[in-house]
Amino acid sequence: MEQGGKAVLGWAARDASGHLSPYSFSRRVLRDGDVTIKVLFCGICHTDLHVIKNEWGNAMYPVVPGHEVVGVVTDVGPGVTKFEAGDTVGVGYFVDSCRSCESCSTGHENYCPDVVLASNGVDGDGATTQGGFSDVVVVDQDYVVRVPRSLPPDGAAPLLCAGVTVYSPMVQYGLNAPGKRLGVVGLGGLGHMAVKFGKAFGMTVTVISSSPGKREEAIERLGADEFLISSDPEQMKAEAGTMDGIIDTVSAWHPLAALLELLKPMGQMVLVGVPSKPLELPAFAVCPSGKRVAGNGVGSVGDCQAMLDFAGEHGITADVEVVGMDYVNKAIERLERNDVRYRFVVDVAGSLGADA
Amino acid sequence: MEQGGKAVLGWAARDASGHLSPYSFSRRVLRDGDVTIKVLFCGICHTDLHVIKNEWGNAMYPVVPGHEVVGVVTDVGPGVTKFEAGDTVGVGYFVDSCRSCESCSTGHENYCPDVVLASNGVDGDGATTQGGFSDVVVVDQDYVVRVPRSLPPDGAAPLLCAGVTVYSPMVQYGLNAPGKRLGVVGLGGLGHMAVKFGKAFGMTVTVISSSPGKREEAIERLGADEFLISSDPEQMKAEAGTMDGIIDTVSAWHPLAALLELLKPMGQMVLVGVPSKPLELPAFAVCPSGKRVAGNGVGSVGDCQAMLDFAGEHGITADVEVVGMDYVNKAIERLERNDVRYRFVVDVAGSLGADA
Repeated sequence: MEQGGKAVLGWAARDASGHLSPYSFSRRVLRDGDVTIKVLFCGICHTDLHVIKNEWGNAMYPVVPGHEVVGVVTDVGPGVTKFEAGDTVGVGYFVDSCRSCESCSTGHENYCPDVVLASNGVDGDGATTQGGFSDVVVVDQDYVVRVPRSLPPDGAAPLLCAGVTVYSPMVQYGLNAPGKRLGVVGLGGLGHMAVKFGKAFGMTVTVISSSPGKREEAIERLGADEFLISSDPEQMKAEAGTMDGIIDTVSAWHPLAALLELLKPMGQMVLVGVPSKPLELPAFAVCPSGKRVAGNGVGSVGDCQAMLDFAGEHGITADVEVVGMDYVNKAIERLERNDVRYRFVVDVAGSLGADA
Repeated sequence: MEQGGKAVLGWAARDASGHLSPYSFSRRVLRDGDVTIKVLFCGICHTDLHVIKNEWGNAMYPVVPGHEVVGVVTDVGPGVTKFEAGDTVGVGYFVDSCRSCESCSTGHENYCPDVVLASNGVDGDGATTQGGFSDVVVVDQDYVVRVPRSLPPDGAAPLLCAGVTVYSPMVQYGLNAPGKRLGVVGLGGLGHMAVKFGKAFGMTVTVISSSPGKREEAIERLGADEFLISSDPEQMKAEAGTMDGIIDTVSAWHPLAALLELLKPMGQMVLVGVPSKPLELPAFAVCPSGKRVAGNGVGSVGDCQAMLDFAGEHGITADVEVVGMDYVNKAIERLERNDVRYRFVVDVAGSLGADA
């Protein structure tokens, strides 16, 4: 959508094939509080895949995906106080919100009903937002976070969505205390981040997976303490009632009852994957034991900054496969069959510029 | 089961017919910390019905049901410091626990894996427990609560289970603050207590029911502020995103998605009814909005005492139909078809003695 500001180049999907190709458009004219960011790296999230293929029925083509952006500030509006040119910054899943509802007023703007998504969203002025698969983004300073210098920008990019999506509920539900026991269901983009944060918090972390082949990966590479095969009733039973919390990252339908059994009384399960078919919640699995199931959607800007600061202190990044923009269609194809450890990141500055 | 202590008379079920008839047995020999209680009134809970008919497959016949006891202390063991003869006291769903597990150590003994139920439970010494449909119960002082003098003992009896089952999660999840909006799903023994506590907390209370006929009852008799027909999509949609919490008391299978829509972002649903078929939990209904679903099972002894103190201050009792012990089989038959407003209470002292 032409907005009269800076001319930029992105890669966009034009239809439900989801095929991405170069797309020239303009960013909005810099507002008072806006920050212009040269995109360095942008992660590829499953959500991008759903949106560009219109699987959720809400695609507003052309769609420039991408909401795991790390970049460098190149220009700021006159009212910007938080950032200056040269700062390394990040932009996540959303780029604005109403700022006045109960969620916004209590620091949970990620749950604002009028939240403006970074890509395929609708801005306050009615314009469709375009994401980070482009050389430049323009974002209000209140929705931009600072990326610690100690973090490599490619590995940091997925923190902006995958990272905060697991970090935020871990903190919110007290699953960040040394000695507590955390289960992580599924070992993909979200799951591998949950393992890393759990270990950095000093917790005992058990990966629960349907794939026996991930044991070595979970324990040797990611530092998990234990590994459970979810389809092995004996293994699962032996660990019944041992976990303070579970982060369930699986986005395909799966039974919850056996996972809930793993929780201690009053234990907390957090769903961060979103299967399209309803999950089954047996009341018997939660009532006599006071157990809890919560959904979580990313995190607030404050959560995101806290997560990045924590990641910076503990040297936490995503395990990434960096690709050029010209590989992005292939990457999405591979992502669709979970053929990545654990996140694709597009080297936007290093490859989009070369094509442009 | 003969335990060598006080000879008592109760009414017990002998088989899965659930038919109750007189049963003579003995209570245990008074232990150091035990309190002997003359039962005045005992409520009839749906759980009693499930147990005496062996619907959960765990009945240990003969079963003397009853776990909503209000009575008077008649004798105490030498180590009892909390009660003395003449005190009006209550006994609820459980009468002991391990006292050392994480749940017990943190004041949540209702979630102790070795909790000893008041009826059809197994005591630490292996004896089967017998409930409050008997003239006398013997219970450790730590699992006995004080019933405020201001409360009539018949209307207070159901507080011991139905009352604390809804009060406890309301306090635990912050659904006890003036100005907050509470939904109560189902208007039975549990639901009508939730409405009363909600109003006493100063909340705006909406009853959500599938029975249009309950509107007048909810608003005129119980003081609810609003009434929603759960099967009317337009009514439900108009209230979307308005509630801080929902206490769902329905024990038959029912769809959760439309109820979850009523919650504000990060709103809390609490399940206190236990349908036998798993409920459906669409991840889309909780993830993008950070909503939460928790199970709850009664409350701790501390919760129960706090609830009774609060009820005493606010004059809250259950709406009851008091019946004699000789009516109990008929009462259970009527309870099975929800033909009671809202709780049967057996006048144990006034009718069992007469028969004995």
